[in-house]
Amino acid sequence: MTRSRGKVEVATRVALDTPEDLAEHYTPGVADQAKRVADDPSALGRETVKANSVAIVSDGSALLGLGDRGPAAALPVMEGKAALLKRFADVDAWPICPVSREPDDLVRTVTDLATSFGAINLEDIAAPRCFTVERRLHDELDIPVFHDDQHGTAVVVLGALHNALKLTGRAPEGTSVVISGAGAAGSAIARLLLRAGYRSDGIVVCDREGVLHEDRDLVGEKVWLAENTGGRPGSLKDAVRGADVFIGVSAGGILAPEDVEAMAARPIVFALANPDPEVDPEAAGRHAEIVATGRSDLPNQINNVLAFPGMFRGLLDSGAPRVTAHMLLAAAHALADVVGEDLVPERIVPSVFDEALVPAMAEAVAGAAKADV
Amino acid sequence: MTRSRGKVEVATRVALDTPEDLAEHYTPGVADQAKRVADDPSALGRETVKANSVAIVSDGSALLGLGDRGPAAALPVMEGKAALLKRFADVDAWPICPVSREPDDLVRTVTDLATSFGAINLEDIAAPRCFTVERRLHDELDIPVFHDDQHGTAVVVLGALHNALKLTGRAPEGTSVVISGAGAAGSAIARLLLRAGYRSDGIVVCDREGVLHEDRDLVGEKVWLAENTGGRPGSLKDAVRGADVFIGVSAGGILAPEDVEAMAARPIVFALANPDPEVDPEAAGRHAEIVATGRSDLPNQINNVLAFPGMFRGLLDSGAPRVTAHMLLAAAHALADVVGEDLVPERIVPSVFDEALVPAMAEAVAGAAKADV
Repeated sequence: MTRSRGKVEVATRVALDTPEDLAEHYTPGVADQAKRVADDPSALGRETVKANSVAIVSDGSALLGLGDRGPAAALPVMEGKAALLKRFADVDAWPICPVSREPDDLVRTVTDLATSFGAINLEDIAAPRCFTVERRLHDELDIPVFHDDQHGTAVVVLGALHNALKLTGRAPEGTSVVISGAGAAGSAIARLLLRAGYRSDGIVVCDREGVLHEDRDLVGEKVWLAENTGGRPGSLKDAVRGADVFIGVSAGGILAPEDVEAMAARPIVFALANPDPEVDPEAAGRHAEIVATGRSDLPNQINNVLAFPGMFRGLLDSGAPRVTAHMLLAAAHALADVVGEDLVPERIVPSVFDEALVPAMAEAVAGAAKADV
Repeated sequence: MTRSRGKVEVATRVALDTPEDLAEHYTPGVADQAKRVADDPSALGRETVKANSVAIVSDGSALLGLGDRGPAAALPVMEGKAALLKRFADVDAWPICPVSREPDDLVRTVTDLATSFGAINLEDIAAPRCFTVERRLHDELDIPVFHDDQHGTAVVVLGALHNALKLTGRAPEGTSVVISGAGAAGSAIARLLLRAGYRSDGIVVCDREGVLHEDRDLVGEKVWLAENTGGRPGSLKDAVRGADVFIGVSAGGILAPEDVEAMAARPIVFALANPDPEVDPEAAGRHAEIVATGRSDLPNQINNVLAFPGMFRGLLDSGAPRVTAHMLLAAAHALADVVGEDLVPERIVPSVFDEALVPAMAEAVAGAAKADV
């Protein structure tokens, strides 16, 4: 039989070797299951794969750093993600790559197929469409909708920043942060920092045109960001001057080493653009106390794979109907705490292979879910 | 970790145990895959699970013999089917149970998610909606759409009938057949018998009101059936009188043993309604030379599990863009031939556990696919 180079496959969880096995797990056995579910929809979680299963949904419109490559190009990426979810969190995820582009159509397709799944992972959908789709699905579905480019990135960044602040003797309320990038990641990071006790006038968000502030002509999510952060007219470089923390989720090479030199004492630099960071990591490291990137060949890799397995394990284990800010905060702090006594400037996040990571995050998320009820 | 009583799960096909594994199968490795697929969509079959994967789609509107139970109740049934596809044909299938009911909406959802799948299995969708959905998807998609209630049932019935005719010394063109049931199964059986050399005036199809004929006030599929079969005004019992073959895909107990007695000499009775056959099998067996049912506790169980694993294996192996009548005929004959020298009246179909079955059917389907090009 021909087999492709796929990264996932389906496996059976029941024996199907005798006529009795077939009678139990197919006809007539499934008829009894169907009747139980029809009588009591909550039986679905007990009787089927739903409770452990996730649809990984991407239209490929903002694929990795590659731009708009469409749903077919998204498939190998989402399949890789499904493999990671199984490997690290025993979650059964299947890639779904819709051809639809309109938010209404994407929402319609995902709500239409949500019955089979215990949670939805949205991925690599272009901004600002991704915000509309995520919020509408959040409102319309009774299962959690996790947008990895927003929530996953924000959880890892907040967790890493928590440890970086600890190492440099800072507290969130007294720390100034400049975020470069106002797409899904930048927006979600700003929102989560606000929830985590960072002051709104301590946060500045920049897009390609410079700092977001209320006098600019903005639309959608950027209006909210301008109103709820402390941005004043100026360029990214203006904003970075004197700041404690730089978080780049934008484009390679937009800062020079001198910009880092102009930051506050003992600055923290997260230059997460991939594969080329916002500032050369080695040069930045001559001035910054802590440097993190998205690259696997350098210390402190900020990668969503640190977050989404534990998040989904916790969401599914708790049967949570939606993702809340409490869960994201709990997950970020659990992620930070896993580093424990190993915490040094070159190690502010745990290894994805740390076996304590997923259970710790899952427990934190499930605990927050209980508190949210 | 909480696990449900699901019958399938996802498994990884690649090692994810080192940073190098992650670099190959997630970032940055998947970016290269994505670029290759974006440049050449045919790479999708080589690079991903698509080429071996099937969406099992049901809205639960005609679930087993239970009627309209909705998409949630359909999930355990479709999951059982996914388990069978893996067990018997190494096909990776995932259950999708849309809440949509309008044909337009079902078609839209399935076309929207087809990128991830190499074939579509439609299942337990109420007639006449199922015909509209199947034909539109057949026309709009470039992957095969197999409607098991039509195609699967027709393949097993034709294969079984092929062997029954052999045992009773009949040829298709001289055999008269009465089909009870004008839904998805009855219609598809009639259409496939016509393709297999049975004469249109040798076939009669009945619904609850009696024989389908051109003077009745019919709509949709039944108009075609009335025009293309040899029905004349009368009841099912009228039609059965003198017939060689009775095929019931309708409701329990609608024939009496005397009706079988009134058939031609050496009659063939397929009473497939489940769990109660159209006529008592034991009583029918006193007059009929061959009796088949849908029941697992009696000889000659006519069950779709004999057909769909081999069909999908052949469809996926051949990369066929659609299901054709040639493929269904080839599959039915391959199924019949697997019985080989074991052919006796109590054994007109092979065992689902016969290891020769799926490879023989897959090869026949793939051969027909090649001939269709």
